[in-house]
Amino acid sequence: MPRYALKIEYHGQPYSGWQRQNDRPSIQGEIEAALAKLEPRAHTISAAGRTDAGVHALAQVAHCELEKVWNPFRLSEALNFHLKPAPVSIIDCAAVDDDWHARFTALERQYFFRLLVRRAPCGHQAGLVWQVQNPLDIDAMREGAAHLIGRHDFTTFRSSICQAKSPVKNLDVLDIEQVQTRWGTEVQFHVHARSFLHNQVRSFVGTLERVGAGTWSPDRVKEALEARARDACGPVSPPRGLYLEHVVYPTDPFADSKATEPTPNEAV
Amino acid sequence: MPRYALKIEYHGQPYSGWQRQNDRPSIQGEIEAALAKLEPRAHTISAAGRTDAGVHALAQVAHCELEKVWNPFRLSEALNFHLKPAPVSIIDCAAVDDDWHARFTALERQYFFRLLVRRAPCGHQAGLVWQVQNPLDIDAMREGAAHLIGRHDFTTFRSSICQAKSPVKNLDVLDIEQVQTRWGTEVQFHVHARSFLHNQVRSFVGTLERVGAGTWSPDRVKEALEARARDACGPVSPPRGLYLEHVVYPTDPFADSKATEPTPNEAV
Repeated sequence: MPRYALKIEYHGQPYSGWQRQNDRPSIQGEIEAALAKLEPRAHTISAAGRTDAGVHALAQVAHCELEKVWNPFRLSEALNFHLKPAPVSIIDCAAVDDDWHARFTALERQYFFRLLVRRAPCGHQAGLVWQVQNPLDIDAMREGAAHLIGRHDFTTFRSSICQAKSPVKNLDVLDIEQVQTRWGTEVQFHVHARSFLHNQVRSFVGTLERVGAGTWSPDRVKEALEARARDACGPVSPPRGLYLEHVVYPTDPFADSKATEPTPNEAV
Repeated sequence: MPRYALKIEYHGQPYSGWQRQNDRPSIQGEIEAALAKLEPRAHTISAAGRTDAGVHALAQVAHCELEKVWNPFRLSEALNFHLKPAPVSIIDCAAVDDDWHARFTALERQYFFRLLVRRAPCGHQAGLVWQVQNPLDIDAMREGAAHLIGRHDFTTFRSSICQAKSPVKNLDVLDIEQVQTRWGTEVQFHVHARSFLHNQVRSFVGTLERVGAGTWSPDRVKEALEARARDACGPVSPPRGLYLEHVVYPTDPFADSKATEPTPNEAV
C-alpha cells in the first residue's frame, strides 16, 4: 500500500500522550480517527517519538498506509479538515518507500525545552513553558550539562518504568541558551540523541534547573550520573515546556514537499 | 491616598474587554476584585487603553489608590496572589504622584499585531495570532501603510460606535515586518499614536492584509482614507492578534522599579 510520512505539530496539554489508549485522548488516536474518515477501517500509525502526556511537538514524524494513492498536499488538507478542532496539525506530508519507517529509519531525535524565568505568572504562555521564579546561573547549568554529553549509562536520568533494553545512550547535544522574549527571559535547552530513555530530557532539565538555582553544584551532576541510581537524580521537570522539535533521517523525506506552502493569492 | 501605577499583562480571550461590565467578565473587574481583597470596598481603576474583547496586553498601564502605604513589590505580589487563576498578571508596580493618571498622563500608546501566514492550523498559537492561509506581499502592505502615517481624518478606519470627539488623529508609526518563528512566518505590525479611534488598529490590519493578498492595490488605501467613509474600509481583523504593547509617559513610572526581578536564590 502507498506509504506517507506525516510531519505533525501538536499541543500536548489535552492528551495522555502520543500513544493510543482505549479510554483516554491521545494524539495517535486523533490522527488514526482522521485517517478512518478517509478510508473506513482500523489504522495504525508509527511515530518517531512517543511523547508523554503534556509534551508538545513542533515536528513529530509518523507514517501511515492508505489503499488509495494520494497527492500529499491533498492528504494533509483532508487530515487537517477531519482533525479540527483538535490542536493537532499535519504540517507536511510526503510519499515514502514501503520500507521507510518513521521510528526505525530515524537517526536522531531533537528535543527543545522552554524554561521561563520570571516572577509574575504568564497567562499567554501557560501550558507552553515551565515557569520558575528564581534566577538561574546559565554558566553553572552549562558546566553541569557538559558532564552529560557523550556515551554514558543514564540509569540516573531514566524513569523507573522505562522499557529500554539498555540504559547506555549517546547524548549528542545538550545546549543551553538564554533568550529574551516578549514574555521575559527564557532558558532554552536543545537536546539531541539517536534515542532517549523515558523521562530522560525532563530529568536533565529538572536537575540542571537546580544547578542554575544554586542548590546543586555543577559537579554534583557528574556524581549523579556516575551513581547510576534513579534516586541520585534531581527533580523531573513538568512536561509543558518540552517539544519534540525535529527528527533526522538519512535523507529528509519532506525535502521536496510543497505541502505547507501557502496557496496562490485568492480572496478569503 | 497613595497612588500606584500597575503594569498589566493579560490574555484577552476570556474577557469582554478591559472595561468593567455588570454581567460579563472584564480585566478591570478582575483587578478591582483583587484590590477589594486587600482593602474591602469598591475600587475603580483607570487604564491607558480600554482594549476590546479578545485583545491582549503585554503591558497595559492602570493606576489605583489604596489607603495603606504599600511596598510596590509586595503590592504586585499580593494582587497576583488574588488574581490566580485568571490570565491577568501585574508585571510591574510603582508609587506615583497624586496627579499622575494612567490615561491622561500618557503620551503615546503602542500596539503590536501578530498575523501568522501558514496553511495548517496552529494549535500552539490559537487565540494569540490572526492566522491567514494566503501569502502576503509585504512591500505592497508597506506601500499601503505609508498613506496612513501622519495627521488625518480617520473616519474610514473608525467603528460606527466610536465615541471620540474628533476623527482626526496623528499616526506616528505603522511599521510592518516579516519574522520567522517556530510556528511559521509572521507579519508583525507596530502601530503607535497618542490615541486611537475605536477599532482603528484592527481596521488598518484587516485592510492591509487585503493589500498583501493582492485584492486591494496599495493606492486604494489612500482612496479609502480620503473617502472619510466607514464603508470604504476593508475588513476589520479579528482581535486575537492584537496586543497593547507599551504606553509612553513623560517619565517612565517604572524606571526605578525592581518589582519584577526574580528573587534571590532559594530552593523551590
